[in-house]
Amino acid sequence: MKLHKTYQLTDIASLIDAQIIGDPEFPVTGINEIHKVTPGDVTFVDIEKYYKKALTSDASVVIIDKKTACPEGKHLLVVDKPFNAYNFLAKYFRPPYFNQNGQSANSSIHPSVIIENGAIIADHVEIGEGTVIKANAVIAPHVKIGKRVIIEQGTVIGSDAFYFKKENGKHTHWHSCGRVIIEDDVHIGAVCSIARGVSGDTIIREGSKLDCHIHIGHGVVIGKHCLIAALSGISGKTIVGDNVTIYGQVGIAQNLHIGDGVTIYAKSGVMEDLEAGKTYFGSPTSEAREKMKEYIMLKKLPEIWDKVKRMV
Amino acid sequence: MKLHKTYQLTDIASLIDAQIIGDPEFPVTGINEIHKVTPGDVTFVDIEKYYKKALTSDASVVIIDKKTACPEGKHLLVVDKPFNAYNFLAKYFRPPYFNQNGQSANSSIHPSVIIENGAIIADHVEIGEGTVIKANAVIAPHVKIGKRVIIEQGTVIGSDAFYFKKENGKHTHWHSCGRVIIEDDVHIGAVCSIARGVSGDTIIREGSKLDCHIHIGHGVVIGKHCLIAALSGISGKTIVGDNVTIYGQVGIAQNLHIGDGVTIYAKSGVMEDLEAGKTYFGSPTSEAREKMKEYIMLKKLPEIWDKVKRMV
Amino acid sequence: MKLHKTYQLTDIASLIDAQIIGDPEFPVTGINEIHKVTPGDVTFVDIEKYYKKALTSDASVVIIDKKTACPEGKHLLVVDKPFNAYNFLAKYFRPPYFNQNGQSANSSIHPSVIIENGAIIADHVEIGEGTVIKANAVIAPHVKIGKRVIIEQGTVIGSDAFYFKKENGKHTHWHSCGRVIIEDDVHIGAVCSIARGVSGDTIIREGSKLDCHIHIGHGVVIGKHCLIAALSGISGKTIVGDNVTIYGQVGIAQNLHIGDGVTIYAKSGVMEDLEAGKTYFGSPTSEAREKMKEYIMLKKLPEIWDKVKRMV
Repeated sequence: MKLHKTYQLTDIASLIDAQIIGDPEFPVTGINEIHKVTPGDVTFVDIEKYYKKALTSDASVVIIDKKTACPEGKHLLVVDKPFNAYNFLAKYFRPPYFNQNGQSANSSIHPSVIIENGAIIADHVEIGEGTVIKANAVIAPHVKIGKRVIIEQGTVIGSDAFYFKKENGKHTHWHSCGRVIIEDDVHIGAVCSIARGVSGDTIIREGSKLDCHIHIGHGVVIGKHCLIAALSGISGKTIVGDNVTIYGQVGIAQNLHIGDGVTIYAKSGVMEDLEAGKTYFGSPTSEAREKMKEYIMLKKLPEIWDKVKRMV
Repeated sequence: MKLHKTYQLTDIASLIDAQIIGDPEFPVTGINEIHKVTPGDVTFVDIEKYYKKALTSDASVVIIDKKTACPEGKHLLVVDKPFNAYNFLAKYFRPPYFNQNGQSANSSIHPSVIIENGAIIADHVEIGEGTVIKANAVIAPHVKIGKRVIIEQGTVIGSDAFYFKKENGKHTHWHSCGRVIIEDDVHIGAVCSIARGVSGDTIIREGSKLDCHIHIGHGVVIGKHCLIAALSGISGKTIVGDNVTIYGQVGIAQNLHIGDGVTIYAKSGVMEDLEAGKTYFGSPTSEAREKMKEYIMLKKLPEIWDKVKRMV
Repeated sequence: MKLHKTYQLTDIASLIDAQIIGDPEFPVTGINEIHKVTPGDVTFVDIEKYYKKALTSDASVVIIDKKTACPEGKHLLVVDKPFNAYNFLAKYFRPPYFNQNGQSANSSIHPSVIIENGAIIADHVEIGEGTVIKANAVIAPHVKIGKRVIIEQGTVIGSDAFYFKKENGKHTHWHSCGRVIIEDDVHIGAVCSIARGVSGDTIIREGSKLDCHIHIGHGVVIGKHCLIAALSGISGKTIVGDNVTIYGQVGIAQNLHIGDGVTIYAKSGVMEDLEAGKTYFGSPTSEAREKMKEYIMLKKLPEIWDKVKRMV
């Protein structure tokens, strides 16, 4: 995430009670996970074998648990528990809960927006012209919704990333400070959940239409003019191209790339990247034509078994 | 949908700024998609090769984009964009949103009905004696619920049909003006969604019991005394018979017919009609006994492979 | 369920208008299904072939539809319709609906708990220190939630068990009077549903993390430090061990036992007990290594078919 304004390193340090190695006046502009960092960002490291990776990344500031030689142009914030400090900053700059009881504060909602009874609009939300938020839907903090979008009943935009830090067999909640961005003319059906990014954004591009009970994981990007049918789920950070059609009850694993114009038939389980323009089926998926041949072959199995038995 | 009263054709024409070819005093009684029309209905056509189909259908009035020879007993409404005009009428006569802020208007709710905190009852809703609507459920406009029905928490009755008009690679929202009808003694579990019909009705017949996270598509009919387990989905316009048992995470494609007394095992994917009284399994489904044989054969495959290799 | 205080048998009898055979002052302490009973409990029987089972069970009191020889130490309550009488008691002692309009009565909620807008907290609920209940979540009556728990938006804790009494082809709602217990440091994602036990408890043990759209059936126990991904469902009374990892869209049938440390890959369908420490895949599941071999063999099928054809 980018901070809403620039802070001096010393301000950040005092929030987490850190010792500065570097320039106290260095301008800090963002907070990000290690694989999302750009110059101006704070990140953290707490395992010695990853020190080098963190210190040579694009991050300008590294929260670290030991005093270490600091490369030129980098700045260190030394604390006992870097993950806790990082999580504190993420929560401080993007608090997960409502600031105001019963009121949406610091939000920018076009006067034409229809908000039905029971829908909850959190703080720091933007909603564009002609959009409809139906009954009992929830728009969580820092979500950005475009024009002429329809959010159906009971849907949650901006739930937490399912993302934890594992230590000694326990899982610690990693505060998600990313956003959800819904572009113009998107339709999201009833009782869906769109998770926010961990530190980046989850994006649904213009004109895409989602049916009901769909889960979109953290940091996923859905391209333009896609159709996704009910009860499908897309795991964290997967990138879906434009004009993709996904039938019902499909599951797509994390960190994959689904090419433009792909069609995925119902109940498929996608475990690898899919090539643009092709049609897939099955779990794990193959090209639909290949999969159909397999099904035909399966029906022949008793006959094969019979012949093979007689030959021996 | 049938209109709540009869209108003269001239009233309809003025709503959509149309030129009338026919009798301005013709009594209009409904608005429907082309495959749902009955006499008295308005429908639309905007593709020349479908003109004949529309003009020879049971519809009495056709919204059309060009002046055309009008058959005996039919009436035309000429506009530039027939789909937009049709969508306007559907919204006008069955507005998708609440008319009253925080109040359910024009609804008929039996005094014995229990409505828990946070449940939203929209306008033009009917609810019968002894029914319970639990916390944060949503009953959308024009839904009709019978006696002794239980609607669990967070469930949405009457979400939009997942139905769009595709033009030039973009999908335009088709306003659903159909209803949902829930008959007596039905149970619908938590966080389900039951979509309204596009212009007809979605119906859950008496005594059927649905578990949680179930999606019922637009225009689906579920027969009497069915059981449907969690996370299953049934696509648009599929007809399910009486006494059908559907286990968890089953998906059924659209426009199918599932016979009375069918049993469908968990995680099945149904892609064709199923015969009454039989038991099915797999994706795509076969009769359960056949499918079980396939699974046994699959386990024999390494042995078959071994024998075939040695023979060659 | 255990009653909140001890009642005399005569008090119970008068609630359901029953004739007592036994000691009117016998102290009644609980109401339970036949397979959950302990001494002091009331249960019911209405089918003659199950009389013996009920009368020799650990239950002290049996609601029965005919006067019968009463074994030493047992007590009978004779009524016309034992199931209706049992259901009446279950509802009387644990009413399913809110007692107070808009207010949570008799609940114990730590002052540090954050309850976001639109979240509904029913009566007789306990919530521990540092817990967060997000927007539009529902905590149903008699749910117990530990410390530092996060319940995401739109999630329902304590929906009804999907449990009916079947008679003459109809299914009668069996009132669930069990509870849900969520231990410390649990995370439950958006739009999940956790069903209450029929007469026992559904339990999520400490540190377990559930993603979105997950259904947990009645009486299920999830062990410590489990991870469950989106759109998975676990059926009634299944026991899941500690440190189990369940990927997305998995389904687990009822009454199973999943051993400690098991991993279940995405979209699997579990139909039998799984051994501790192993990894499973497929529907029906096999050990993942075996399943992977099957998939490889499937790809060889055209080659096998080809060879077999040429041999004949």
